[in-house]
Amino acid sequence: MSRRDLFPRRLDIAHGCIEMTHGGGGRAMAQLIEELFLTAFDNEWLRTQDDCAQFAIPASRLVMATDSHVVSPLFFPGGDIGCLSVHGTINDVAMAGARPLYLAASFILEEGFPLADLKRIVESMAQAARQAGVAIVTGDTKVVERGKGDGVFITTTGIGIVAAGVTISASRAQPGDAILLSGAIGEHGMAVLSQRENLSFDTPIQSDTAALHELVAAMVTAVPDIHCLRDPTRGGLATALNEIAQQAGVGMRLQEAAIPLREPVRALGEFLGLDPLYIANEGKLLAICPAAAADKLLAAMRDHPLGQEAAIIGQVVADDHHFVEMKTVFGGSRLVDWLSGEQLPRIC
Amino acid sequence: MSRRDLFPRRLDIAHGCIEMTHGGGGRAMAQLIEELFLTAFDNEWLRTQDDCAQFAIPASRLVMATDSHVVSPLFFPGGDIGCLSVHGTINDVAMAGARPLYLAASFILEEGFPLADLKRIVESMAQAARQAGVAIVTGDTKVVERGKGDGVFITTTGIGIVAAGVTISASRAQPGDAILLSGAIGEHGMAVLSQRENLSFDTPIQSDTAALHELVAAMVTAVPDIHCLRDPTRGGLATALNEIAQQAGVGMRLQEAAIPLREPVRALGEFLGLDPLYIANEGKLLAICPAAAADKLLAAMRDHPLGQEAAIIGQVVADDHHFVEMKTVFGGSRLVDWLSGEQLPRIC
Repeated sequence: MSRRDLFPRRLDIAHGCIEMTHGGGGRAMAQLIEELFLTAFDNEWLRTQDDCAQFAIPASRLVMATDSHVVSPLFFPGGDIGCLSVHGTINDVAMAGARPLYLAASFILEEGFPLADLKRIVESMAQAARQAGVAIVTGDTKVVERGKGDGVFITTTGIGIVAAGVTISASRAQPGDAILLSGAIGEHGMAVLSQRENLSFDTPIQSDTAALHELVAAMVTAVPDIHCLRDPTRGGLATALNEIAQQAGVGMRLQEAAIPLREPVRALGEFLGLDPLYIANEGKLLAICPAAAADKLLAAMRDHPLGQEAAIIGQVVADDHHFVEMKTVFGGSRLVDWLSGEQLPRIC
Repeated sequence: MSRRDLFPRRLDIAHGCIEMTHGGGGRAMAQLIEELFLTAFDNEWLRTQDDCAQFAIPASRLVMATDSHVVSPLFFPGGDIGCLSVHGTINDVAMAGARPLYLAASFILEEGFPLADLKRIVESMAQAARQAGVAIVTGDTKVVERGKGDGVFITTTGIGIVAAGVTISASRAQPGDAILLSGAIGEHGMAVLSQRENLSFDTPIQSDTAALHELVAAMVTAVPDIHCLRDPTRGGLATALNEIAQQAGVGMRLQEAAIPLREPVRALGEFLGLDPLYIANEGKLLAICPAAAADKLLAAMRDHPLGQEAAIIGQVVADDHHFVEMKTVFGGSRLVDWLSGEQLPRIC
């Protein structure tokens, strides 16, 4: 049977919608995979159409990370769930100091979702993966009934390898270390929120969604002894710092004036009563390194397009309470606690 | 801050439900992860609480597979979404002849989902992973609003390594090869369906959900030159054979009388008008190997608890149409086509 016999009519991507049969395992699913996913992600691994991908790997330390993406709305200023799902997982792999190699992508589609929107999302994923030099090598597609999902959820899983001698983990943060941040905070969360609430501004806030592995590679080359890297996504900078403080058994002291923050984000935060410290980022990273190496690391970060606004924002201290405290621009001191109440839901 | 300061009250698992804050990235999410997921899956990788897992791996061919699980209902005779999500991905890795090593698990939870049900599911996953000797090393948790999900969706991604000299892929099926099946068909799909439709029987049908990697290891040891392995899940045996025929550019000839089928499955299929050839399995595999090795492979399969009812069910033939044809028990011949219309939705 030729492909033409198997799928006598091409998918009507302009007008068609996801139907339950697209998840049934039969001919309709095979066609969706072939005409939409394989076309966009095309590579030697997907072309085998086995239920898994195979590749040779050198003896190494391997890193594995996974993230489900449920962001709402699916399209927002500066990105969409497609590129976000590639960047998010690449970044989790990169935060171990690893070079991301391969991604798996699994889709949960809602019956009735427009194929045209799915195509935009899949092409955005494909472009993000190509730009990052990471192949999407295997995947899965499920369909749920109308009202049992929300358009599309995408789970990506990434693997990468770490160079010998690089040992990056939150637990390595220690008193005296410097805390560096790669750029301005709060942009992803505020971009999604402004889209969701239909707020418009003279200078719209764009999501900062980006793959950070090349920035990380430059940083590790400059300072192989980086102790800790983390991308402050859900819960923002405040939550990421509290997590590290807890895992490493240390405290943190920040200088508010040193934390990069753009005026539109500050203004929208004030307008909505949201603290940018707790707002999600998708293209920023925190780095913790020995104080003696901080200037060298900062210079390496500023040399990279994604780290031009990098800054040293504080230091790690001994603190049995594992508190994150911040000297405010007004000269006072403020406890930067864990986020405990409501937060922006479905930001990534 | 001690753990007790961070989470002053323990999660009320008996009466509590998932709330939006459990996905917010803050304190509530940290507590859910610690008291529910880490407790069940406990291992050295999760304990680091980094956003990824790291492990050493020898130079090898690596296999990666991913599956989202959206089965409805979440609990069914013989299993639940938890063990299914472990078995499903382990099996996809095993079908490359690989030894599964590590799993990532990502959860999309619906607001209002009972924590007690989540605990049952997570413990079932943990038990399935322990039994299979595979660690769940990293994960993610998202929460969507009531009515935007359906209780819980679980995406698992697995990696494994393939021994040198083993090259198993659908494309290797060739005319003359024997087709073997490890046991009776249709049990998973019929078990889920009977639960969904509230059908009860004197001998209830149990899902066959099981991890097949040890059966595969025994098979590869007996016959290293197995050409192809596939687990006939969604779309059942018929769809898996059609996929292989298409990928390898061959035809298949089956003997209906040789295909293991238990009486309750046959009877329920007749009652509901469903052909067991198209019904999902979650603990069965198809193997294709040179005819000369078929008896040896069959013996190895029958020696394993999950292959006791294994049978040679047909042979691969040259066929430009890539048809799967079956000689029926009545002596006629029937085309076993791709599933093209409706199928049982959300079976896995």
